[in-house]
Amino acid sequence: MPQGYPAKAFAGEVVPFRVVAFREGHDRIGVHLRLTDPAGAQTLHRMTPLADGTDRWQAEVALDTTGTWTYGYEAFADEFATWAHASAVKAGAGVDIAVMSALGAELLGSAAGERDRPAAERTLLKAAASRLRKADAAELASVATDPSLVEALRARPIQGVGSTMAPLPLKVERTEAGVGAWYEFFPRSEGAVRQKDGVVKTGTLRTAAKRLPGVAGMGFDVIYLVPIHPIGTTNRKGRNNTLRAEPGDPGSPYAIGSPDGGHDAIHPDLGTEKDFRSFVRSARKEGLEVALDLALQASPDHPWVASHPEWFTTLPDGTIAYAENPPKKYQDIYPLNFDNDPSGIYAEMLRVVMHWVALGVKIFRVDNPHTKPLQFWEWLIREVNAQDPDVIFLAEAFTRPAVMRALAAVGFQQSYSYFTWRNTKAELEEFLTGVAHETSDYMRPNLFVNTHDILTEYLQFGGRAAYRIRACIAATAAPVYGVYAGYELIENVARPGSEENIDNEKYEYKLRDWDGAEERGESLAPLLRRLNEIRGAHPALRQLRNISFHWSDDDAVLVYSKHLDAAFTGTGRPDTLIVVANVDPHSVRETTVHLDTRIWGVHPGDEFDVEDLLTGAEWTWRDHNYVRLDAFAEPVHILRVKERS
Amino acid sequence: MPQGYPAKAFAGEVVPFRVVAFREGHDRIGVHLRLTDPAGAQTLHRMTPLADGTDRWQAEVALDTTGTWTYGYEAFADEFATWAHASAVKAGAGVDIAVMSALGAELLGSAAGERDRPAAERTLLKAAASRLRKADAAELASVATDPSLVEALRARPIQGVGSTMAPLPLKVERTEAGVGAWYEFFPRSEGAVRQKDGVVKTGTLRTAAKRLPGVAGMGFDVIYLVPIHPIGTTNRKGRNNTLRAEPGDPGSPYAIGSPDGGHDAIHPDLGTEKDFRSFVRSARKEGLEVALDLALQASPDHPWVASHPEWFTTLPDGTIAYAENPPKKYQDIYPLNFDNDPSGIYAEMLRVVMHWVALGVKIFRVDNPHTKPLQFWEWLIREVNAQDPDVIFLAEAFTRPAVMRALAAVGFQQSYSYFTWRNTKAELEEFLTGVAHETSDYMRPNLFVNTHDILTEYLQFGGRAAYRIRACIAATAAPVYGVYAGYELIENVARPGSEENIDNEKYEYKLRDWDGAEERGESLAPLLRRLNEIRGAHPALRQLRNISFHWSDDDAVLVYSKHLDAAFTGTGRPDTLIVVANVDPHSVRETTVHLDTRIWGVHPGDEFDVEDLLTGAEWTWRDHNYVRLDAFAEPVHILRVKERS
Repeated sequence: MPQGYPAKAFAGEVVPFRVVAFREGHDRIGVHLRLTDPAGAQTLHRMTPLADGTDRWQAEVALDTTGTWTYGYEAFADEFATWAHASAVKAGAGVDIAVMSALGAELLGSAAGERDRPAAERTLLKAAASRLRKADAAELASVATDPSLVEALRARPIQGVGSTMAPLPLKVERTEAGVGAWYEFFPRSEGAVRQKDGVVKTGTLRTAAKRLPGVAGMGFDVIYLVPIHPIGTTNRKGRNNTLRAEPGDPGSPYAIGSPDGGHDAIHPDLGTEKDFRSFVRSARKEGLEVALDLALQASPDHPWVASHPEWFTTLPDGTIAYAENPPKKYQDIYPLNFDNDPSGIYAEMLRVVMHWVALGVKIFRVDNPHTKPLQFWEWLIREVNAQDPDVIFLAEAFTRPAVMRALAAVGFQQSYSYFTWRNTKAELEEFLTGVAHETSDYMRPNLFVNTHDILTEYLQFGGRAAYRIRACIAATAAPVYGVYAGYELIENVARPGSEENIDNEKYEYKLRDWDGAEERGESLAPLLRRLNEIRGAHPALRQLRNISFHWSDDDAVLVYSKHLDAAFTGTGRPDTLIVVANVDPHSVRETTVHLDTRIWGVHPGDEFDVEDLLTGAEWTWRDHNYVRLDAFAEPVHILRVKERS
Repeated sequence: MPQGYPAKAFAGEVVPFRVVAFREGHDRIGVHLRLTDPAGAQTLHRMTPLADGTDRWQAEVALDTTGTWTYGYEAFADEFATWAHASAVKAGAGVDIAVMSALGAELLGSAAGERDRPAAERTLLKAAASRLRKADAAELASVATDPSLVEALRARPIQGVGSTMAPLPLKVERTEAGVGAWYEFFPRSEGAVRQKDGVVKTGTLRTAAKRLPGVAGMGFDVIYLVPIHPIGTTNRKGRNNTLRAEPGDPGSPYAIGSPDGGHDAIHPDLGTEKDFRSFVRSARKEGLEVALDLALQASPDHPWVASHPEWFTTLPDGTIAYAENPPKKYQDIYPLNFDNDPSGIYAEMLRVVMHWVALGVKIFRVDNPHTKPLQFWEWLIREVNAQDPDVIFLAEAFTRPAVMRALAAVGFQQSYSYFTWRNTKAELEEFLTGVAHETSDYMRPNLFVNTHDILTEYLQFGGRAAYRIRACIAATAAPVYGVYAGYELIENVARPGSEENIDNEKYEYKLRDWDGAEERGESLAPLLRRLNEIRGAHPALRQLRNISFHWSDDDAVLVYSKHLDAAFTGTGRPDTLIVVANVDPHSVRETTVHLDTRIWGVHPGDEFDVEDLLTGAEWTWRDHNYVRLDAFAEPVHILRVKERS
């Protein structure tokens, strides 16, 4: 955890609270986690020790209520445990029987007198104390190890000296901050039609809404729209990012602003505010939540340029500075200069966000947040969440680790991640271990498989298998993942030498035949549909921190399990999935996977049954299992561990 | 750093201050370390970036004054660096020449007007500004990369927006807290004589003092005495920890207290307080500092047992509880129970420590601190250091990592460590990396090669080679190390099945023939003498954090270097040592070592000269070098890198 920022969780997240606690000498201690929920109600959770010698303790708790919780740790001398341990050992060795019995009688007798213990427990303690008053070695050992006594005094321990840690805050955000399947599209492409003259007629919010049932039908939860604002005409980019737009080229939606308005306006091509409201309603009806793009930059035609020239950088020649990464220039975009008038810019951005919140948008995908001040995001997210704690911001930052982590720490609820470039087994193990076990207290990765700006070499050259493998891993390894429209159609041709699609949709309309592709059996929509179905049926997949990696003898066969204890599934039954993925999209792999089955409560060597949720195949497995994964036929197993009755 | 405790350093330590700092976007930043010394004087240190993409910055500073410093970091937009970078790139690409020149003229012209800049620098800036007012591309590039300008503006940067971290405390303790060669002995053995009747006549402080020139002659800095207090007779242990002492058995010095007194008394066998003062004076004259043992426990005959029975644990049968680790008992020792009367015990312990401080003792080796409360140590060390900041406490804790680290964090100036049990190359690399680079902000290991309680299997079975190897590593890998008397004589016979010497000196006198052994060429004294001489001549060896590991092709050949920049040696010349150790005491190893010579400023592939400080051999080395290390003849090279003129 970066210092000075609260830990975070999402509603329903099972949080492993961990602390280092010990006391001098050899006496036994107990440790409690004290949670205070946002309403002020406190609960106490007995912690269990982790590996011997580490002095680390853990309690797993599912946090269900949104708001600011606090957590604190309380360690105490566990007087009964210390006595019981010494007594059992000494009874076995036949030493100090009388002394230990007398000490025990005193300890339990005194605890029996504590008024806040249930009456039945006081009776139990009193009886044990009187057994000890005339105990021989066998009786001493029997009391010291009496299960009902141990159980009662674990729940309400006899506490000696102790120490308490000052409580720390933990922000619980709504479930969607940490769980969801995202689908990105350009609304102008959805329903766009090539007319007889070859000119494309733009899609609109109304035509785009017709695609919503298809997206919802694949099981997605969030529909994310690239910017829907008016697009500038000055220096508008043409196809493939060329400097000169041809007539009919729609321009990059990231060149925001024209005489038709800025960040609070809707591109006239797409429709009106009324159309937007209707789009949001249609999405909701389909079970989809709308996410908007928040790209804080302006085209030269943005109203801000005239009304607030001080928000930009004016050069000595009187012109406004374009965005650039010297010597490259982005002539269709002016970056904001936050240093010039921070308070003015801050206020305007808050106004813009709240404008869309009022129209029903509660999720923002923030474009390039790492080029704006961290303090600004910290302020904006705090202000917005003060007015509406349900608003979620996703940081689209692909930059250095320290910056990515800082954005998450200061408030972003979700983050793009390096997932896109982690393709080998070793890379994925390291990456997923990091996001699940190292940064998960404050950072939640959204595992996008592609974006309108990213078409990795793995996807460019891995064929259909690559698309299947990446979707299976993204959908099961973390609780949030995303797909950019066209992934289903395996659009894997890049602009030569680049890592993005040729004919990038940022600069033109894309006309796609979703239904035709599916009818022809070419579409991955059925796979995405099945993956989202599996995610819906398996609560273990809706957690970030519960991933464990297992060994396989093949360098390309990645193996991980996601397990959730019965206490947390809501069904009263544990939920366990094992994913075995051949991450080499060009080969068939046969190998042995070696599982630590204790994670799901199976004794090493014992049999258990699994069902492949993708194919329906069933096998009986043990801790060591043969697998064959054919990249061209079935590159991934997603196995459900079945309960034996 | 454990939270809530100050970082620590010792006077003369070169501390690598490191911080993560970045700003949004692509503009250049600078980072300053601001140090405030104990007198309140501030210095500013420009930090340099570490590896690309890490956003980590470093400044190394030698802290010379003891007391509490503060350190803080200040990051700022480096306006000149940002402009110079963009200008150089754009001049090369031939774009924006006029704009960049005008921006530069404005920036430098304004800086030239800053009153706190030296006059010569203002002239330099003014001249650069006027060159820019009519600059072409070549002139722009020339100003942007002008070395005198870059240098001046690195020293006094043109700072834009910035952010400042609140300063944190850093405690600088006297050099001996972190640097020293320790020698442990039992004063009663030094000068003890076996009489004609076979009974041993005890050594005394006066006879022990006669050994001081020998110890000082080997180059040791600290002479550490096991407890010198009266020893109880009740349940006194006999030889080899037997339950019954024979007449003449002196008992364990850790069973402290008899009718002759307790922790503030001197065993009558050893002498008087006057003798002790004289011993301390003799030591000082030899350049040795005396360290005493602080073992907070009592024999059943300790005066505390009568005067403060409440400081112990009284059992239901009215007896006082012995020390135990059930079912084992230590019948000659009563542990203190700090829970019963903390304030009474705290005050008495402070009194005891200050009693010895008044007698000239400034170093305490604390026996088993992990069996006493952490708060107690935190309090005691703070109180003692408030009265005398030069007092040093060494924690003799061999326990779990979290506990070892906590003792160091709460105040112990030095700590015993796992060094004794880290024998293979891999173990040593991991251990030394940890102590030098992970915990060195608050924990300083004293690398004892043996103690009166520890004779490892490596030493038991490794013969003379093992003793030589371990001494060479301990003396060069860390700035504090220690030897328990008898190491020179290769006393490597263990009590069968144990990890301690047979006929442990705790329970009997040891009569040793130091001079005879050396005359016969059997003693390791000459090696220890040479090692301490090398330590004295090489400031790089008196630092903890400056170790780097290098590759060798052999699993038993450990390679590390210790380097100190010329700025920190006091001689104006850098100091570099390369240690190459065959850690297998049973074989001859030939291999290639691969060095990262850039650490001492040698370009990879370039030649440099080395001298083996143990044998005087000289070689010309490069980054890859053949070595042959014969465990039976010459197991370790300690190479000095010679400067070429």
